[in-house]
Amino acid sequence: MTPLSADDRLALEATFTAYCAAIDRRESAAVAASYYTEDGMMDNTALGSPIVEGRPAVTAAINGMFASMAKLEHFLSNFLVTQTTGNAVQTQCYVQAYGQPNGGAEFGMRGIYRVAMTRIDNEWKIARLTFQHFA
Amino acid sequence: MTPLSADDRLALEATFTAYCAAIDRRESAAVAASYYTEDGMMDNTALGSPIVEGRPAVTAAINGMFASMAKLEHFLSNFLVTQTTGNAVQTQCYVQAYGQPNGGAEFGMRGIYRVAMTRIDNEWKIARLTFQHFA
Amino acid sequence: MTPLSADDRLALEATFTAYCAAIDRRESAAVAASYYTEDGMMDNTALGSPIVEGRPAVTAAINGMFASMAKLEHFLSNFLVTQTTGNAVQTQCYVQAYGQPNGGAEFGMRGIYRVAMTRIDNEWKIARLTFQHFA
Repeated sequence: MTPLSADDRLALEATFTAYCAAIDRRESAAVAASYYTEDGMMDNTALGSPIVEGRPAVTAAINGMFASMAKLEHFLSNFLVTQTTGNAVQTQCYVQAYGQPNGGAEFGMRGIYRVAMTRIDNEWKIARLTFQHFA
Repeated sequence: MTPLSADDRLALEATFTAYCAAIDRRESAAVAASYYTEDGMMDNTALGSPIVEGRPAVTAAINGMFASMAKLEHFLSNFLVTQTTGNAVQTQCYVQAYGQPNGGAEFGMRGIYRVAMTRIDNEWKIARLTFQHFA
Repeated sequence: MTPLSADDRLALEATFTAYCAAIDRRESAAVAASYYTEDGMMDNTALGSPIVEGRPAVTAAINGMFASMAKLEHFLSNFLVTQTTGNAVQTQCYVQAYGQPNGGAEFGMRGIYRVAMTRIDNEWKIARLTFQHFA
């Protein structure tokens, strides 16, 4: 495994944290989608959603979340880099998510995000974000 | 945004984490208050408390928490630096707090800490700590 | 306190996070035990378990957890290095653990891990892991 600098490790964690902050702020789906590569994928098949691919589709999916959910909170922890190959890395973190559908009751959910990230023009971008339940 | 070194980023997170550890240990309000600048502010207006300013007032406010609460736990996550201007930075983190008032039932609370920090004599200090509920 | 490099601080946190990931994946107790020093100790006396010492005993204790528990999840946060002496450091983190005994109901638990770590051949290993309840 190619060693990553401390700056890179912190940037990877900060990028994914900033993405989740953009989701939780609910200001702009386009801003949230800009954390993905142009052809980035969001894979929530574990939650019954189809895979979405490419920033326009990701933006639409995030707008869908904003429209249906009155509240979204993603508490991240246990960040790990699990594989490094040049400018492509696999990371993971645990998530405790809280949400509230419009007119519904708040619910909590725990799981693991597998986050493939790619360095493009010296910035880390999400190439594929996959939610998984604990085994 | 001025780039921060990895050492600075880790020191910012470690400073705020150590502050919360001092609160949760309940040993010394003066030690907890020493993490603030001399004129540091604690802004819990979102929780119905008045803003307190300056280490003596912060110490008194923390002693008030220690006197009224049988238990305090602050689980921090999603640490981000959101703005940097020389020796002044804006950071934020998510918090899952658990508390138990004397003779009362345990409760949990989630929110965001906005933490303005200032570098003084090569140490990061809390200039203003603001608790916010999620939007 | 001897200053630690950013690489070391990140490696300490990553090592303990990877250990907990190995526990939560439930794949191999031997792999999980390999994060300890040869004579490493796991001290769960706060949970009513005897102290176990040495990798074979730690492996057996972890296999015991795997056999009795249908699910294990360790959400870590508030990582701090509290003492550094050459190649020996004291760290701590908060943990929100979720478990489910076979045939039983899921439960949650919060506490603090005190983790003594030692650098051996340029790798950080767990010398002693102690679980504590909040005071």
